[in-house]
Amino acid sequence: MNFRLINKVVGYILLVEAGGLVMPLLASVYFKEDTWLSFALVAALCAVLGFVLSRLPSSPKDLMQGRDGYIAVAVAWLGMSAFGAIPYVVSRAIPRYVDAFFETVSGFTTTGASILTDIESLPKGVLFWRAETQWMGGMGILVMFLALMPKLGSGSVHLMRAESPGPIKSKLVPKLGDTAKILYAIYIGLTAAETLALRLAGLGWYESVTHAFTTMATGGFSVKGASIAAYSSNPAVIWIIIVFTFFAGVNFSVLYAALLGNWRQVWRNQELRLYTCLIAGAILLICLDLFVQTGERMGDSFTDATFQVITIMTTTGYATRDFALWPTFSRVLLVVLMFIGASAGSTAGGIKVSRLLIHVKNLRRDLGRVIHPKHISVLTMDGERLDEGVVASTHSFLVAYLLVTVAGMIIVGWDNLGFEESFTASLTCISNVGPAMGVLGPTSNFSILSGLSKVVLSLEMLMGRLELLPLLVLLNPGTWRDR
Amino acid sequence: MNFRLINKVVGYILLVEAGGLVMPLLASVYFKEDTWLSFALVAALCAVLGFVLSRLPSSPKDLMQGRDGYIAVAVAWLGMSAFGAIPYVVSRAIPRYVDAFFETVSGFTTTGASILTDIESLPKGVLFWRAETQWMGGMGILVMFLALMPKLGSGSVHLMRAESPGPIKSKLVPKLGDTAKILYAIYIGLTAAETLALRLAGLGWYESVTHAFTTMATGGFSVKGASIAAYSSNPAVIWIIIVFTFFAGVNFSVLYAALLGNWRQVWRNQELRLYTCLIAGAILLICLDLFVQTGERMGDSFTDATFQVITIMTTTGYATRDFALWPTFSRVLLVVLMFIGASAGSTAGGIKVSRLLIHVKNLRRDLGRVIHPKHISVLTMDGERLDEGVVASTHSFLVAYLLVTVAGMIIVGWDNLGFEESFTASLTCISNVGPAMGVLGPTSNFSILSGLSKVVLSLEMLMGRLELLPLLVLLNPGTWRDR
Repeated sequence: MNFRLINKVVGYILLVEAGGLVMPLLASVYFKEDTWLSFALVAALCAVLGFVLSRLPSSPKDLMQGRDGYIAVAVAWLGMSAFGAIPYVVSRAIPRYVDAFFETVSGFTTTGASILTDIESLPKGVLFWRAETQWMGGMGILVMFLALMPKLGSGSVHLMRAESPGPIKSKLVPKLGDTAKILYAIYIGLTAAETLALRLAGLGWYESVTHAFTTMATGGFSVKGASIAAYSSNPAVIWIIIVFTFFAGVNFSVLYAALLGNWRQVWRNQELRLYTCLIAGAILLICLDLFVQTGERMGDSFTDATFQVITIMTTTGYATRDFALWPTFSRVLLVVLMFIGASAGSTAGGIKVSRLLIHVKNLRRDLGRVIHPKHISVLTMDGERLDEGVVASTHSFLVAYLLVTVAGMIIVGWDNLGFEESFTASLTCISNVGPAMGVLGPTSNFSILSGLSKVVLSLEMLMGRLELLPLLVLLNPGTWRDR
Repeated sequence: MNFRLINKVVGYILLVEAGGLVMPLLASVYFKEDTWLSFALVAALCAVLGFVLSRLPSSPKDLMQGRDGYIAVAVAWLGMSAFGAIPYVVSRAIPRYVDAFFETVSGFTTTGASILTDIESLPKGVLFWRAETQWMGGMGILVMFLALMPKLGSGSVHLMRAESPGPIKSKLVPKLGDTAKILYAIYIGLTAAETLALRLAGLGWYESVTHAFTTMATGGFSVKGASIAAYSSNPAVIWIIIVFTFFAGVNFSVLYAALLGNWRQVWRNQELRLYTCLIAGAILLICLDLFVQTGERMGDSFTDATFQVITIMTTTGYATRDFALWPTFSRVLLVVLMFIGASAGSTAGGIKVSRLLIHVKNLRRDLGRVIHPKHISVLTMDGERLDEGVVASTHSFLVAYLLVTVAGMIIVGWDNLGFEESFTASLTCISNVGPAMGVLGPTSNFSILSGLSKVVLSLEMLMGRLELLPLLVLLNPGTWRDR
């Protein structure tokens, strides 16, 4: 274990967090709220601690190995959540630390599950920080650091790997720092475009910026207690959010290809095609279900289905309707979408469409083998050969994902809120969606859960965001036994 | 595709079914019920058809390949369910054929889910047939045929493989026919022992035999409307059923080793140890939950928890309490046990404890690889090396199991009975447990479901009992495209 390098990484991330805390500080000052002091204090704390940790002596011969990368990322994310929670407590917006920690983890992991009962009563600076945590966590804080400081050394590829989601990790351009810069450029560009679009649709700057933050991060925190239902009289807002949420769930390397005009590569991307098909299919089925079972007008059913399918599948978790009250068929479909999630290399959670694709391809091959036992066939994705190691690790990922989800469901079950609630609370957290079903649905919140459940669900959110390995390696006794 | 051999296998199975129908025929005569005629008619039909199919000309050069075995088993099980349903309709015990088919599939697959609303009003002969279908399906009908007629030819190993559950298929003794004989001898021996024990505990012969049938098959059909709750005043009956259900969930090759006094092999069996630990752990936790949340007496909590954990984990599905009304934590645990099921090579369903073991072993190896990337390690089970092909097919099995469960859940969702009901109905059927949760719980039944749901759940039961491959191969268009 290379503790020096791990310290360095935690230091860097605290420096980025200190920088991030300046924005809610400025917002507080602008809105003349006395919460600015909480942000100033914590920003100073992070800056000092981050500076010290990042300047601890290290040898130039230090090499970061895979496990060091995983542990560094896990510790860094735990650390930045622990510090990011302090402003909520100091400003008395969220009195209990465990609640503030849950809310912060839910922010950085872009989950969007909340323990807040009355969102609009909170200071605007605090809500700005809440939205900003999602934006920072969306593309990745270490990725941001790599974009700013590309010369982190040879081990930084492990950090980027551990923080960006998907079964296959690829660089857009040869240099890692440049890849990080391109990713953030697209991310910032889309966020700016959505802010402008929402502003033009009639929202104030504050609401435009915060909603663009949480849309592009597929986070789902809203500064409105009613979530996007608060704008249901303004269809332009609804459709702007639908469009940008859809793009936030697309692999950013595909968006990059589209920007370069490389349409062949966009079209060849099987994940994008399946993602689009799944969304279209789910919208059709839920629209039909709502129309038949609730007697809603077809047009309303279509808008509701479209908004909710896209926001759930991209694991954003906004709501325009209380879908926890929808008919069973629609609810079941939404839960399935929660599990799948959106594309690898996007800001979304879930197991990712590309993993589903790998599972289905492999299953089809296995069935083919029964017919032609001696036929050796190679799996391909987007026209390229799929490494068998990727197939195997995709399977392990599924098993670990299920085991963690089930463990979480059992522990939350002790709160005795019902089967649907326990299952979907665990799933919505590991998949970084946000709202669950039943009494934990979109118009409700997670405040009624026990402290134990909140801690467990926080860990699940982190596991989901970092795609399991960093936290599993950290929590695995074997890691510490023989280092 | 070798249709001649497939015809032969279907013929054989119909002959066995004709033989099986003689018992309810005799029971009807004994109880002076006019249902004997229905059984006589269908027995004759099966005998004639079975005779013709099995005598169709075939070439001695015919070789059964893997896929022929799978397709033969799938078609045979569909066929025997289709014919086995006729007596219910002819005797007017179950007027609608789709209901009778569901009940018969639920019988042969040892699921135990029922569409009957008033069980005790039915003729005893009919209920005897209902219990007997479970006993026949428990150890496998083709296995029975192989025990009676060992000289089926070189391809019979494929039939036995396709019908007996578990990730690793092994023979007890070199000759397949002898293996089948030993399996049936243990099965018959345990069934006889339980019958006697229940008789001594005070039950009549009829109730003793039918309950022994459905216990040893881990089926769960009871001739009592209240299931085993009907005997709650007789603790001896409860504990006899607990003990025999436990053994029915153990790999029969382990029972054989125990019979031979080979205790070393029994102790070394990792699946048996995990099976026992999971049962003990679940009993403890549910006992605690019931004691804390319902204020039941500790002794009652213990008996209830023990009975329900064992009957659910072995996928039997008897009930002494309406566990659908239990606190969330207990219900969640029971649903997890439904998914896991009991041991490979037993009469139980679920994904099997040995598959869970393989998943966990493989996951632990993957985590270890992060720490020692160049370390090559081999997985072992019971001290022997686990083939990587088995690991890969265990993963594919899990993926297929989940996909089918989710597909079933979505279709049942259309009936709008609730999320918990849709999910557990699909799970209980593919895992061959029987009762689901909510309004499909143990004191209720599946009659309220739509015809479509009943057909889909019937297919799921067959898929679960035959461990997916036979039906997936049958339903895979690729199988028929290039034969």
